[in-house]
Amino acid sequence: MISPNVETFIGCDSSYRAADIVLYGAPFDSTTSYRPGARFGPSAIRHESFGLETYSPYQNADLTDFDVFDSGDLELCFGSSEAALADIEARAAEILKDGKLPLLLGGEHLVTLGAVRAVAQKYPGLHIIHFDAHADLRDDYLGAKLSHACVLRRCHELVGDGHIHQFCIRSGERAEFEFAAQHTEMHKFDFTGLAELTEQLCATKEPVYLTIDLDCLDPSCFPGTGTPEAGGVSFLQLLDAIRTVAKANIVGADLNELAPMLDISGVSTATACKVLRELLIALDKGWPGFQT
Amino acid sequence: MISPNVETFIGCDSSYRAADIVLYGAPFDSTTSYRPGARFGPSAIRHESFGLETYSPYQNADLTDFDVFDSGDLELCFGSSEAALADIEARAAEILKDGKLPLLLGGEHLVTLGAVRAVAQKYPGLHIIHFDAHADLRDDYLGAKLSHACVLRRCHELVGDGHIHQFCIRSGERAEFEFAAQHTEMHKFDFTGLAELTEQLCATKEPVYLTIDLDCLDPSCFPGTGTPEAGGVSFLQLLDAIRTVAKANIVGADLNELAPMLDISGVSTATACKVLRELLIALDKGWPGFQT
Amino acid sequence: MISPNVETFIGCDSSYRAADIVLYGAPFDSTTSYRPGARFGPSAIRHESFGLETYSPYQNADLTDFDVFDSGDLELCFGSSEAALADIEARAAEILKDGKLPLLLGGEHLVTLGAVRAVAQKYPGLHIIHFDAHADLRDDYLGAKLSHACVLRRCHELVGDGHIHQFCIRSGERAEFEFAAQHTEMHKFDFTGLAELTEQLCATKEPVYLTIDLDCLDPSCFPGTGTPEAGGVSFLQLLDAIRTVAKANIVGADLNELAPMLDISGVSTATACKVLRELLIALDKGWPGFQT
Amino acid sequence: MISPNVETFIGCDSSYRAADIVLYGAPFDSTTSYRPGARFGPSAIRHESFGLETYSPYQNADLTDFDVFDSGDLELCFGSSEAALADIEARAAEILKDGKLPLLLGGEHLVTLGAVRAVAQKYPGLHIIHFDAHADLRDDYLGAKLSHACVLRRCHELVGDGHIHQFCIRSGERAEFEFAAQHTEMHKFDFTGLAELTEQLCATKEPVYLTIDLDCLDPSCFPGTGTPEAGGVSFLQLLDAIRTVAKANIVGADLNELAPMLDISGVSTATACKVLRELLIALDKGWPGFQT
Amino acid sequence: MISPNVETFIGCDSSYRAADIVLYGAPFDSTTSYRPGARFGPSAIRHESFGLETYSPYQNADLTDFDVFDSGDLELCFGSSEAALADIEARAAEILKDGKLPLLLGGEHLVTLGAVRAVAQKYPGLHIIHFDAHADLRDDYLGAKLSHACVLRRCHELVGDGHIHQFCIRSGERAEFEFAAQHTEMHKFDFTGLAELTEQLCATKEPVYLTIDLDCLDPSCFPGTGTPEAGGVSFLQLLDAIRTVAKANIVGADLNELAPMLDISGVSTATACKVLRELLIALDKGWPGFQT
Amino acid sequence: MISPNVETFIGCDSSYRAADIVLYGAPFDSTTSYRPGARFGPSAIRHESFGLETYSPYQNADLTDFDVFDSGDLELCFGSSEAALADIEARAAEILKDGKLPLLLGGEHLVTLGAVRAVAQKYPGLHIIHFDAHADLRDDYLGAKLSHACVLRRCHELVGDGHIHQFCIRSGERAEFEFAAQHTEMHKFDFTGLAELTEQLCATKEPVYLTIDLDCLDPSCFPGTGTPEAGGVSFLQLLDAIRTVAKANIVGADLNELAPMLDISGVSTATACKVLRELLIALDKGWPGFQT
Repeated sequence: MISPNVETFIGCDSSYRAADIVLYGAPFDSTTSYRPGARFGPSAIRHESFGLETYSPYQNADLTDFDVFDSGDLELCFGSSEAALADIEARAAEILKDGKLPLLLGGEHLVTLGAVRAVAQKYPGLHIIHFDAHADLRDDYLGAKLSHACVLRRCHELVGDGHIHQFCIRSGERAEFEFAAQHTEMHKFDFTGLAELTEQLCATKEPVYLTIDLDCLDPSCFPGTGTPEAGGVSFLQLLDAIRTVAKANIVGADLNELAPMLDISGVSTATACKVLRELLIALDKGWPGFQT
Repeated sequence: MISPNVETFIGCDSSYRAADIVLYGAPFDSTTSYRPGARFGPSAIRHESFGLETYSPYQNADLTDFDVFDSGDLELCFGSSEAALADIEARAAEILKDGKLPLLLGGEHLVTLGAVRAVAQKYPGLHIIHFDAHADLRDDYLGAKLSHACVLRRCHELVGDGHIHQFCIRSGERAEFEFAAQHTEMHKFDFTGLAELTEQLCATKEPVYLTIDLDCLDPSCFPGTGTPEAGGVSFLQLLDAIRTVAKANIVGADLNELAPMLDISGVSTATACKVLRELLIALDKGWPGFQT
Repeated sequence: MISPNVETFIGCDSSYRAADIVLYGAPFDSTTSYRPGARFGPSAIRHESFGLETYSPYQNADLTDFDVFDSGDLELCFGSSEAALADIEARAAEILKDGKLPLLLGGEHLVTLGAVRAVAQKYPGLHIIHFDAHADLRDDYLGAKLSHACVLRRCHELVGDGHIHQFCIRSGERAEFEFAAQHTEMHKFDFTGLAELTEQLCATKEPVYLTIDLDCLDPSCFPGTGTPEAGGVSFLQLLDAIRTVAKANIVGADLNELAPMLDISGVSTATACKVLRELLIALDKGWPGFQT
Repeated sequence: MISPNVETFIGCDSSYRAADIVLYGAPFDSTTSYRPGARFGPSAIRHESFGLETYSPYQNADLTDFDVFDSGDLELCFGSSEAALADIEARAAEILKDGKLPLLLGGEHLVTLGAVRAVAQKYPGLHIIHFDAHADLRDDYLGAKLSHACVLRRCHELVGDGHIHQFCIRSGERAEFEFAAQHTEMHKFDFTGLAELTEQLCATKEPVYLTIDLDCLDPSCFPGTGTPEAGGVSFLQLLDAIRTVAKANIVGADLNELAPMLDISGVSTATACKVLRELLIALDKGWPGFQT
Repeated sequence: MISPNVETFIGCDSSYRAADIVLYGAPFDSTTSYRPGARFGPSAIRHESFGLETYSPYQNADLTDFDVFDSGDLELCFGSSEAALADIEARAAEILKDGKLPLLLGGEHLVTLGAVRAVAQKYPGLHIIHFDAHADLRDDYLGAKLSHACVLRRCHELVGDGHIHQFCIRSGERAEFEFAAQHTEMHKFDFTGLAELTEQLCATKEPVYLTIDLDCLDPSCFPGTGTPEAGGVSFLQLLDAIRTVAKANIVGADLNELAPMLDISGVSTATACKVLRELLIALDKGWPGFQT
Repeated sequence: MISPNVETFIGCDSSYRAADIVLYGAPFDSTTSYRPGARFGPSAIRHESFGLETYSPYQNADLTDFDVFDSGDLELCFGSSEAALADIEARAAEILKDGKLPLLLGGEHLVTLGAVRAVAQKYPGLHIIHFDAHADLRDDYLGAKLSHACVLRRCHELVGDGHIHQFCIRSGERAEFEFAAQHTEMHKFDFTGLAELTEQLCATKEPVYLTIDLDCLDPSCFPGTGTPEAGGVSFLQLLDAIRTVAKANIVGADLNELAPMLDISGVSTATACKVLRELLIALDKGWPGFQT
């Protein structure tokens, strides 16, 4: 009997029941203020992953050694941020309820808010570790409270002062940097301070949500994103940061802002695939820490 | 004294006071369901128009013979369709109040609704002539009532049965074609029937809003659009249709769905510029008919 | 329970058991002599079909009214034409054995040979109707007998004189045109003669294999192919031809030579999707004629 | 012994001595006012011609039946129009002195002036047949007398009233159309009148220079040019025109304004190659008429 | 009252009268020997700057704190280098006469010569600091003395030995490196020596013209330029160099060789925007030093 | 007398007889498993080299000081790996027989096998130094023994354990890394260990074949390749490695896997040209060591 065409991120062939980590895509970019296209990120990552090896020489481990399930993309309503966020939150909540780690593929960065709502609901005292070129701390953007440029500000309303830890930030309004000085722990430009932070969080076993805006990478290695910002980190620096942070008690995560059509060389998508492979392996290696 | 940099559509150097026609751009594409990018349409048209001649050998007239004012782009809120539509409506109402013809540059097709709200308010009994590959008659799209795929359905709620005249339609759900059979006058595939319709509308001098989705053109001559549909009309057919319809009492118009980044050859933008030049000249030639 | 990500051509959601027509992809382009990339054709068609309506206003029918199964892509060996053809033939034979119509998505044109081997085995006296810019009648190409440039020559060895009917041909070596004059029925440049041919084939109910090289289309509407040839037919001409030929007793078919990366506007892929929708509907409408 | 790498337009392998027609490239675009890149035209035509068949089914003839020599590209000085034109003129004069037909590959359209200077020197009473979207009749462009936008005006100064015959023109300033009405024979939009003109020129055996700006083609089939103008002729119309005009006493010719980088699908370059093949065959078939 | 569309570099909204720094664009690339397109640089920088924040976290300052005026692009004659240079010189002289700092946006590097002529006229003993991948010290290029490849050689004729300081140079003919050894101070590959040089120039308060060819950046972070040269500096290195050199008495500056169409990801343009923001802030911070 | 158009890599104008090094191109990519296009690598390198200076400031030497001959591209059979390899081997053998160093331009990496067969035949005890992102040590790929993914495995069968030295490897199946641990000397990620290795090989004067897969470079500086792998080396690191290894007794070399169409900015091709220039100069400087 011939089977229908199933398409998942490479090596993520676990059943849902057996899976530790569940991928879910949020193809949404309606609030993107500059160049849209992040909606195509999750399907491009899935589609192009067949060109990726499942084995990581960096971590000497193979994706197929772990149990990951790829649930495909949500069908989200364009033009209504609130509706889209509700659907994302519901999916995250379902995965969490089943004791699995939800790993969201964006989409623009606003999608993080849906996931964080579900995770913060389950895990009071949640910390957010945020890798990004942009502070994303505006109170509103042209009147919209729900915007990619405000997403960490909205998250701050959920988790409070001192629970947001920002790295690689190199762009924002002056007011955002002033807000950060008061309310978040912001590390400009690179990952300085990440090892110390992780050590503290490991010591207390506090739950951590990890949100990675891929534009933290330098545009030289990741041009395919809506708002490229010169002066970012390298792939190897990001890889180190992921392996560092994965030692903490990560209870949810996301990877966002790949806009594949903006880089027709395909390098950005290939790099996003590789970041996802490394993230999955690092999270899976730290799995027991995930249990609450 | 050195002056600052003013950028308008070529030849549109009238003062606002003297202008008959006022261009206004709506760089919005938040509800685009497939490939976004129409937000960049109006600025690309303006920007690339410097490669266009102001003289039309088709109509033996020159843009500089007429009085057109280009008011630039509105600053619209991404992620909130209702807010964006309100801003578009307000701008259209202001132009109408001053006795001028508002000519809207989209953006995705939803922007038409903002303009039609203002125009229908001023002109009861308004007719809409609609050039498009897509019927745009869905009642909702993934739950959203305000979507590019629903825009003519929303317009129908404003102008009623028999007041929407659709041409070149070659894509839609079966239910949209069934709705059209009941409520609109739909001409599939090309401009058959347009001359007769215009004659009737001229006879009665009824007010007409003209909305042109540039994807009515065949993708061979206009690939730079979010949802290209093979089997469309040629540039010369569209030009003929514009010159035909311009004889009616046109009281408002728009040109939308250029997504310039999707056609890096620049041909789609150059063609949109030329369509706009021909539309402006045709409308201006018919100007006295504009008075109600 | 969350389900895994299934990806099929839009509206092709039948079970294998219930299906009349079975899609299968052959992502192979190893013998392409000029610009490769047709290997990405079938997955691009499947992937981008979500931007296509299932309803056809041309045929007033909906893909979802029919039973089509999409079996995804074969995993073919690059660099060995014989191995790839064997796998294609085996898949076609399996589909035929189950009484269904195999519809192959290429890939370069050589893949047709695998399918024709299986079909000609089941249906002695098979006719081949061939839409293409190129004659594909070389005896060898730089020494290779198995090449896209030789595929109809190899088919001729299977079905014999007078059983190959070529349309739209506008490129080849002089020797290929001389071979055609002796052994095939060649119609240069367009579809002249297709209606008469179909009438004859309908009268005798002879089995027919339909192979469509999408480069029969003019490059203006289909630039995304390895060897574009100016002077081709339009989308509407191809659509008419498909509806004509579908009245014959079609027992197998293919659609090939989309190289999606060569047309980054996406128009070629969107057009291929639309051709496939129309082909599926036309074949399904003529289904009873399919029974042997 | 291994030979060095010779690269010519396909099938143009004659010795210089034996050749009837001599190709020479002018990779110059310094005066292009909009989008440059035509400098890469001749090398792209030569380079991509290996994907072209030498046989023409349109004319049932093969390039290899004729004697054509490809002399490669001139090394021209960017930034000095006069120096570049002098080099082009010298090369054309040398070819003419040897009794051969010079066929120039541009480059921007200004290069024509260099060739016409040499040809008009040898052939008093020269007529120019001009296929183009643009009138190219400005007296100057931003102060420059030597500009692609002025090239036919400069030619008019050499050949006088009634000796320039323009076809397909659909763009220019009003003043250019007024100049044409007085001094040239202009046919707007298409090839209407070409057959009659050719008949007259054949009757008198007057010498003719043929200059083809490839942007006479519609941008749908030829997007790769600096200033695409919607509303042009099709490839088949151009092919017919070439076969018509080749019956006259053609003593020099050029093909220009391919800007290959502007069409990354490669279709424009492939089409230019095919136009050149057909032009070479048509000119060679009419060879005896070339003798003065 | 509705206003016309003004487009300036973001945050440069000063009146001319109040401005310290005046931007002026020179969209010229006629002598570019390899890949043209730098003519589109200044308008692309202005156009895409709306995606840039006005605040710099690197310098903790905001563009809107300063007074910069953007006078748009000059309308230059293509094909005549001398005419274009004269227009650039005149504009620079006018800005200097009004006691403001002229900041030129190219265009190809030859445009620097126009500005340097005006600045050297006002400031005898002028030094030039030159960041570039290429030495630009040829005496002529294919016969042209006015060529991008000769621009520093021409400048040397104005300012003399020891007054040109070159950094990041990694390409040129052997003769150019030999010329440099005699007549300029050349630092190959990077910014080694810049701090020392600046210290000396600060001590003496000598006037300095700063010319930045953006291809000093590595092509990985700046692919959008006519002649990319592997092995360049990073964005952060360039940023450091700008902040260092801005301490000197800068009396004129330029930024050139962005060819935006060569990098369709948009990263190069975004990076050029960011370099310009940082340059404007750095120059404005050092403003009092500007007074002579 | 006008000469025909000869096209070689810039500065490689030696006669075959006088040449020390002979370039030969293998435009083959039939076994590429992901994105094809490396077939266009050698002609793109040759074609775009006219934008490169012949002088190297890194090595203070000029290509024109040496004797290099460019024999153009072989005409290889697509679809038959064995036939293609035989032709490559024959060409390499001929060059070796004439006492010259064969420098192969790929094409996909499989072409190396043809060259290594010839070189290993002449030089028993041959060592292979391999720069690559990928281990290329699979025993077969989807059944094919002759695949780019297996090329070093096939080479290992020729030269045996301990004779293959791999650098920069960062991708492969786990089994390939296990194979390497047993049979090759693999240095992951960078060039660590290369200097020591070269010293040993110099001491013994053992013959060395150098194969450079350009995807050893980071995709940020070399995106134009079929399978880009984040985390690679920089251009300057590669340049250092080449200068280091050139001190050994290099008896054959290749440079492969540029797929120029995948990087439309042209940076990858320009970088490949520069790598080739530096490789040629480095090899030529070490020429006496080449003698056996």
